[in-house]
Parts: sequence; C-alpha cells; structure tokens
Amino acid sequence: MSVCSARKRKVTPLPFDLIAFDADDTLWDNEPLYHMGRERFSQLMAKYGPLEDLDKVADRIEIGNLKFYGYGAVSFVISLIESAIKWTNGEVAAEDIQGLIDLSKEMIEADLPLLEGVEETVSRLADEYPLMLMTKGDLLHQQMKVDRSGLAPFFRNVEVVSEKTPDTYAAILARLDVQPTRFLMVGNSMRSDILPVLEIGGWAVHIPNDLTWAHEAVEPEEMPSERFFEADNMASLPGLIAQLAGEDRSS
Amino acid sequence: MSVCSARKRKVTPLPFDLIAFDADDTLWDNEPLYHMGRERFSQLMAKYGPLEDLDKVADRIEIGNLKFYGYGAVSFVISLIESAIKWTNGEVAAEDIQGLIDLSKEMIEADLPLLEGVEETVSRLADEYPLMLMTKGDLLHQQMKVDRSGLAPFFRNVEVVSEKTPDTYAAILARLDVQPTRFLMVGNSMRSDILPVLEIGGWAVHIPNDLTWAHEAVEPEEMPSERFFEADNMASLPGLIAQLAGEDRSS
Repeated sequence: MSVCSARKRKVTPLPFDLIAFDADDTLWDNEPLYHMGRERFSQLMAKYGPLEDLDKVADRIEIGNLKFYGYGAVSFVISLIESAIKWTNGEVAAEDIQGLIDLSKEMIEADLPLLEGVEETVSRLADEYPLMLMTKGDLLHQQMKVDRSGLAPFFRNVEVVSEKTPDTYAAILARLDVQPTRFLMVGNSMRSDILPVLEIGGWAVHIPNDLTWAHEAVEPEEMPSERFFEADNMASLPGLIAQLAGEDRSS
Repeated sequence: MSVCSARKRKVTPLPFDLIAFDADDTLWDNEPLYHMGRERFSQLMAKYGPLEDLDKVADRIEIGNLKFYGYGAVSFVISLIESAIKWTNGEVAAEDIQGLIDLSKEMIEADLPLLEGVEETVSRLADEYPLMLMTKGDLLHQQMKVDRSGLAPFFRNVEVVSEKTPDTYAAILARLDVQPTRFLMVGNSMRSDILPVLEIGGWAVHIPNDLTWAHEAVEPEEMPSERFFEADNMASLPGLIAQLAGEDRSS
C-alpha cells in the first residue's frame, strides 16, 4: 500500500482518460446554416415553377452524392446545383448556378455562434481532462470553424474524419492508447456520436439539438443504459461527469 | 557497455525514426487526371467560342477558390463550373454544367495506377521503418485512393491535411514524438513535400514527376544540400536510404 492511498482524504481518480466532443450542433450552431442554404435554394428556384417536390429531389440527390463528396458545405452546394438542373429539366440559368456557388462561399465564411454554456464547460473540463474534438466533414472548412471558434486551445487533438463509424473511433483510440471503457463522447447525433461509441464499449452523453439533420437522427429503441446519458445542455455536463467520477470509483 | 555493443559485428542503427511519403504523383499518377479534366472542360466549352483565354480564366478562378474549397477533385470541378459561367458570360447551358458534375464523379472514382517501383520500394522499406502517408486534399477522396491503392497495410499512419506547411509537419511530428532530424519525407512537390520539411530541420528526397501542377513547382535557387536529395525514381530510394544509413552512423 502506497503512502498516498493511506492518507485520510480520499482522492477520487478520474473516470475517463479522454473526453471527446462533436463540433457541429454540439459546440456551435451549424444546422441553421444549412436551413438557410435550403431556403436560398428555394428562393432561387421559385421562378421555375411550384416548389412542392423541390426538397424531395434535393434530399435524394444529396444523400446519393454522399459517397462521392462526403459531408460539408461544398458537397451540399454541388448537390444543390445538380438538383437545380434536374428539377428544372435543364432550364436553370447560369446566374442561378452562380448564386449557389456564392452561397457555398458564404456558408464557408459564416461565423457560427457557440451554443450556450459551451465556453465555460469546455474550459472547465480542460483543466481536468485531455479533450479531443472529433468532427466529420470537409477538412479545410472544419479546421476554419475550429480556428474561428476560439476553442482550439482547449483541445489536445482535433480529428476530422469522413465518417464516424465504430471502426473510426476504435482506430483513433488505439492510436492514442486510450481504452474505450475510459473514453467519453459528447454530441448531438445519435447516429454519429452516440451509437458507434457505445458499440465499442465507450461512454456517451447525448445533448439533443432542436435542429438535427434527419440523416443523423436515430430513434433510440433499446439503449444500453449503463454507459449512456442524456443532458439537456452543455452547462449540465460537468455536474454529470463529476457524478460519474463519484459513482464509478468511490463505491 | 552492454553485451550487444561489445559484439564483433557492427549493427548500423537506422538513420530515421519515420519515413513519410506524399501520395499524388509520388505513389500514383494524379496530375494526368486533372489534365484530362481540363481537356473535357475545353471540349464542353468549345461550342461557346474560341478557347484562347479559357485556361487563363480557369487558372485564376481555381487559385482564388483554394481558400474556400482547398485541394481536390470537388474543389477543381466547382471552380470549373464557376469558370464556365464567367467565361461564357452566363451563356453556359445546364447540360454542360451537369457534364462537369459528372466529370467530378468520374475523377473521384478513377483508378490511379501506381508509379513504377512504388510497390516494391514501399513494401521493402516498411520492413525496416515505420512509414507514414501524408497527403493534402479532400479527406474522403484521399482515403478512397489510399484504400484502392492496396498500399494501406504498409503505412502505420495516414495523414490527410489541408496544407503542407512547416507548422503542419512540426505538429504531426510532435504528436508522434519524432524529432525532425530523424524524419525523412519523400515527394514530388518542392513546395509541399521538400521545402517545409527542410525548414523544420528534416530530411527530404525529391522524386520529380513529369507532370507537376505549376502551383506546386518551385525553382530551387539555393538548397541546403546536406539534408536534401534528388532521386530519379522510386526504385532508387532504398539504395539512397541505405547509403545514408552507412554515412550517417558508421563513420
């Protein structure tokens, strides 16, 4: 028995070796930008006819193009250009295509406001835990958003990946020499942030966002309850983690 | 003095802790795909007028858009779409825009033949050294290309970055705990693969490629000679490295 563990005051060891955060719609608003993009698209298309099936055409083309272009604003806009051509039967004018290209640049340059409680929570947790930011999408744009957020100094690692699968998480944790049972992921997407982490034996906190892309939403049917938690917002995260620290180790 | 170092047979320690390879136009042909893309673009535009200033317009728009879209086939094609609109004064037909979108998908799905000697060299060096693949461009497409190349098993790390600057190299080496003086980079681009590595104190082997994008070409005015080498092709790389191992440690 070491000198330390013989002391009167009990020091609770931390329950995690690494805490990771999703970025879009977890740390900052992102989905509203895409809603704005779709609205601009509708405005540009309105002169060509009734808009009723426009969204359906655009949804189908966007999902079908993910395998070529991946996620992000450029992928989104090149799919809108293809949707415009398809939906107008080739009648769309070049100036409206240019309007969509301008939209992509606007989206890439947009400032994305931090969500409530994010700065306090991230800076507070960074004092105790190594933090990682893990996001999927376009490499350059995601890096720009991290830089502009002012949060970069709090994260030891920033990982931009093309898909968040169990394999992706397992590979990153293996590279960082972190056991999945000592890893906590925080995010708004059940599909990308929660389910794959639970699958490899990690812990996950779901912070729902009012606006979540349908593609990312999954109805939780049967959740492994022991390593899964829901939090209303970022501000309640440090309390939840402190509680886990207490429960996990002091009993 | 340990038992090992007292042995008669001298074991030459390896001169590098990590050898990294650029991918496009170093391991496989890539620039010919972009030449084909520009040719297709010219064919599509030929009906709108004399092509003389087409390349100049497309070059300018492509370089100007790098800050938004980064490198890669999608960035290339969305810039061609913008160039088509600009160059035709908005006269370009939607079907020709669709032709460019089809081109982007073809480029993303294209098989890229390995350059001569690559497979033998990479597999041979992987027996002795940890190898890293370091490429810039679109995350998803670069990963697809690595997967399709069959070379992935030889690389311990695959890094896709948005720019290859001295800072990018320094950050990756720091994360992997590798000293720059123990790092060798192999690539075809003076701008991206050679100069930034020499700047942080690393070693670099330039393997020129007949086709190198003008943006990546730098005229070497004054090269630090000690840590810089040129090789005609991949096949001569193991010999060059073996020579460095001898010179560096056995004198």
